[in-house]
Amino acid sequence: MSRKNKPWILNADCPSQLGTVDVVTRFLAESRNYVGEIHSFDDKEVNHFSMRVEFHPLDEDFDAEQFNQQFAERAAAFDMQWQLTAPDHKSRVAIMVSKYDHCLHDLLYHYRTGELAIEIPVIISNHPDLEDLAKWHGIPYHHLPITAETKPEQEKQVWELVQQYDCELVVLARYMQVLSDDLCEKLSGRAINIHHSLLPGFKGAKPYHQAWEKGVKLVGATAHYVNSDLDEGPIIAQGVQAVDHSHYPEDLVAKGQHIESLTLTRAVRYHIEKRVFLHGQRTVVFPD
Amino acid sequence: MSRKNKPWILNADCPSQLGTVDVVTRFLAESRNYVGEIHSFDDKEVNHFSMRVEFHPLDEDFDAEQFNQQFAERAAAFDMQWQLTAPDHKSRVAIMVSKYDHCLHDLLYHYRTGELAIEIPVIISNHPDLEDLAKWHGIPYHHLPITAETKPEQEKQVWELVQQYDCELVVLARYMQVLSDDLCEKLSGRAINIHHSLLPGFKGAKPYHQAWEKGVKLVGATAHYVNSDLDEGPIIAQGVQAVDHSHYPEDLVAKGQHIESLTLTRAVRYHIEKRVFLHGQRTVVFPD
Amino acid sequence: MSRKNKPWILNADCPSQLGTVDVVTRFLAESRNYVGEIHSFDDKEVNHFSMRVEFHPLDEDFDAEQFNQQFAERAAAFDMQWQLTAPDHKSRVAIMVSKYDHCLHDLLYHYRTGELAIEIPVIISNHPDLEDLAKWHGIPYHHLPITAETKPEQEKQVWELVQQYDCELVVLARYMQVLSDDLCEKLSGRAINIHHSLLPGFKGAKPYHQAWEKGVKLVGATAHYVNSDLDEGPIIAQGVQAVDHSHYPEDLVAKGQHIESLTLTRAVRYHIEKRVFLHGQRTVVFPD
Amino acid sequence: MSRKNKPWILNADCPSQLGTVDVVTRFLAESRNYVGEIHSFDDKEVNHFSMRVEFHPLDEDFDAEQFNQQFAERAAAFDMQWQLTAPDHKSRVAIMVSKYDHCLHDLLYHYRTGELAIEIPVIISNHPDLEDLAKWHGIPYHHLPITAETKPEQEKQVWELVQQYDCELVVLARYMQVLSDDLCEKLSGRAINIHHSLLPGFKGAKPYHQAWEKGVKLVGATAHYVNSDLDEGPIIAQGVQAVDHSHYPEDLVAKGQHIESLTLTRAVRYHIEKRVFLHGQRTVVFPD
Repeated sequence: MSRKNKPWILNADCPSQLGTVDVVTRFLAESRNYVGEIHSFDDKEVNHFSMRVEFHPLDEDFDAEQFNQQFAERAAAFDMQWQLTAPDHKSRVAIMVSKYDHCLHDLLYHYRTGELAIEIPVIISNHPDLEDLAKWHGIPYHHLPITAETKPEQEKQVWELVQQYDCELVVLARYMQVLSDDLCEKLSGRAINIHHSLLPGFKGAKPYHQAWEKGVKLVGATAHYVNSDLDEGPIIAQGVQAVDHSHYPEDLVAKGQHIESLTLTRAVRYHIEKRVFLHGQRTVVFPD
Repeated sequence: MSRKNKPWILNADCPSQLGTVDVVTRFLAESRNYVGEIHSFDDKEVNHFSMRVEFHPLDEDFDAEQFNQQFAERAAAFDMQWQLTAPDHKSRVAIMVSKYDHCLHDLLYHYRTGELAIEIPVIISNHPDLEDLAKWHGIPYHHLPITAETKPEQEKQVWELVQQYDCELVVLARYMQVLSDDLCEKLSGRAINIHHSLLPGFKGAKPYHQAWEKGVKLVGATAHYVNSDLDEGPIIAQGVQAVDHSHYPEDLVAKGQHIESLTLTRAVRYHIEKRVFLHGQRTVVFPD
Repeated sequence: MSRKNKPWILNADCPSQLGTVDVVTRFLAESRNYVGEIHSFDDKEVNHFSMRVEFHPLDEDFDAEQFNQQFAERAAAFDMQWQLTAPDHKSRVAIMVSKYDHCLHDLLYHYRTGELAIEIPVIISNHPDLEDLAKWHGIPYHHLPITAETKPEQEKQVWELVQQYDCELVVLARYMQVLSDDLCEKLSGRAINIHHSLLPGFKGAKPYHQAWEKGVKLVGATAHYVNSDLDEGPIIAQGVQAVDHSHYPEDLVAKGQHIESLTLTRAVRYHIEKRVFLHGQRTVVFPD
Repeated sequence: MSRKNKPWILNADCPSQLGTVDVVTRFLAESRNYVGEIHSFDDKEVNHFSMRVEFHPLDEDFDAEQFNQQFAERAAAFDMQWQLTAPDHKSRVAIMVSKYDHCLHDLLYHYRTGELAIEIPVIISNHPDLEDLAKWHGIPYHHLPITAETKPEQEKQVWELVQQYDCELVVLARYMQVLSDDLCEKLSGRAINIHHSLLPGFKGAKPYHQAWEKGVKLVGATAHYVNSDLDEGPIIAQGVQAVDHSHYPEDLVAKGQHIESLTLTRAVRYHIEKRVFLHGQRTVVFPD
């Protein structure tokens, strides 16, 4: 996708059925919208159809509302869900962090360059450490400490901030707290976490120490949607990094931070560019 | 693409125009052909549209000839070229070699396992060395020696063999002779060569020795369609391999053979799975 | 390491102690052996020293026996184990297979080209399927069927073949049987297995089906020394391959076979080039 | 190398000769310095020896000056150059930039986390754009505009700053000016540039546009020492990034910035961790 003259994006998914592609592409042609790129996939194991189209309206008076209204009539017959994304749309993203800053840093950098077409109205943390970094970028930083006792109250505040700042996506950029089932449920499909291992290997705490004990030759990271099954949400992206015997556990931690940052930023980009379809426990990801 | 229940493949390309996608997908829906996967790309720099569809006919009496006839009527208005490929189609591939066997070996292996859905009716070489290998696989081996004087005659024989064995594709698997402009022309768009460098770096002879002198930290290979501009045909696939100071030129040669084999086999697979569209000096490649 | 003028290799390891490096390098200098390359590593977590030296004798009458005798005196004080490998040494390797041929094929190819400096005096299988392939390479093929009842007897035959053919290394190239603790013990440190996942993820049967269910974006393979803890021996090499939603379980199997072959052949090469030191549950691997 | 309890590093290189390794390791043993890791390589093509040792003194009163004096006596016979680096040494690095900030950003981040053990006493630019970024990190920013006429004067100022701030290394982090032969000479072996292609392919201006025209499937970056032969200095590190037909030139630029940043930061790390030996037009790089 060219970053100049960015396209409109139409995403659609529905149960498998003859005509799913046709209902989309015919509408686009008839409404004089020029298709630049299509990816579609019909999963025959789970009988679900996903499609992503980049297009440019040929007429100057393109009206998104009218597009949605007219397409709704056709899509209804297919029980189709869809989403139209404007070229200048910037997803509003809340970032949650603890003390590690490498993932936050990478997100902020790609936000600042415009490569990630997002707004970051708020950064939330259970620690005060990264406030300076947030401030330099001019982003409100909310320090919400947490203990076992205050967790329900803290999560309530988190949820209020997400709503108040009207965030479509929450990114857990090494936020070192497990979200409650209730908050997971509320954020279902719109919260991305980075786990510092190639899930499902090395679940749980200190994965790099586990990896060192096994003498692995690769470490990795997994970005996934958060759900109530800890470290088990639907996977969006994974990355790896070669390591060897000379890397002690603390070296693996440092080595791994690179691949965590790269993998999380990539997953966020896929999400906000509408490349990810979530269906059940699995994702369809159309890469660029 | 699942290797079980393989799909029909429809490829189409034409000059950019509103409705190119629609004319394909509408026809598929109306003729009750179920779309599994679509990739389409409309190149705005060169104004050319390419599309690849995997589909399964819903009716048992699917008739390819009828499909082609009916689609021809619709495609005509778009000046569209298209190709329908049956699930059980095996491309007929002639392989040309000299003395190096690593690329031949890799092709034969993936042919034998069925991962490359091809037939290899003939292997042609300017040397006798690899005849045993061909024989073991039960493939006719034609030894056509070549000198500057006999080149026109030899190439005439090559061309006759390609026609006689009805080959759709010719793979130059480290065939160490430059094809004449005439033969390049005849094989245009259906001959794939492997060059042992990341073109356009290190063109010409002894690329690994050139690479050693430069002290590069990566060597690579480029699979491309053959054209009359030596080492300059449209690129299908490239691969790289990390190297370091301890690799003398002869080591780089050995290291490079891996990546040559992998890259050539990948390019052949892309071609025979109809993932490659050739337009001018550039390709569109829809990977799996 | 240059493949021309191959060096002698000296491997040594012992408990950590001041002077371990010096005892080796001083001896080499005093005995007029010219050092081309050294890798040494002293693991401070487990207090163990490993060192690999490539060298060329400066005098034509180099005598390996004398080298060993003289070095023995010096090494004794360090409780050092060492091994001297001649430039023309070819490790004798028994390969065990079942029905899958991709790993066998890759090993045989690199054996035939001389890139793997090995001899393969015997191939052992619990199935007859791959006999033709063995025969073409002129290698004796022993078909030793196995059932729960005959397992002790079959393993006895395996062990006798390994001894009879004087094999230093046994490679389980997708041999689909679990070795008994007894045979594992006998082959300790000289049997390499390929597991078709990135251990410790997806242990056990059908790892690719497990991977599909999780929707992973990477699959991989692990080559490890066999021990009695199934799928848990010390890791020598790991490789990965990107996959996506369009790969059904049977596609993951096919995709994975590439990376299995590459990873196993790499591990065998590291072993026979004396790049691997096994100490406890972990390895030190000095790559080229 | 563990980041805790960092070792002393001894680098040495000299013309090839029997005993080069021994003179180093014997001295270390005799002076009670415990060797953690050795890499040595003796290049038989150019007859030059390079060696890097990580060690920990066993005695608390280790005296670097004394070490250097005593070792000097032994090294003299070998015409050996060497350098001793303390565990807490931080290389002083001047960074030069123009308007692109991606490489600067990556360097500053790894500087701030301590992963790059450097000090950055000064940032020099021919444009004012990146002053804010420098300020946030508390680093003096010198804006030295340049024109064809003022180039000699500007370079004089650059050189004075490098001396004034006592910088061991100058990093050209997408500094878009060609250095004069004179300044190249002054900075010989201690200035690193990032070129946005896999040299020697796509030398000169607009390499990504060149790459797009060729339809390459990989783009890359090369970090190299600066010399007077533009885009041709000794290579330290190279990285690649897969691309495809859907990436227009401006997309390749964006895609490439990732790999430029990663590759430059890696090269700087190799240099300051004393992993790079420069000899003639080629480097020996001992990676971690």
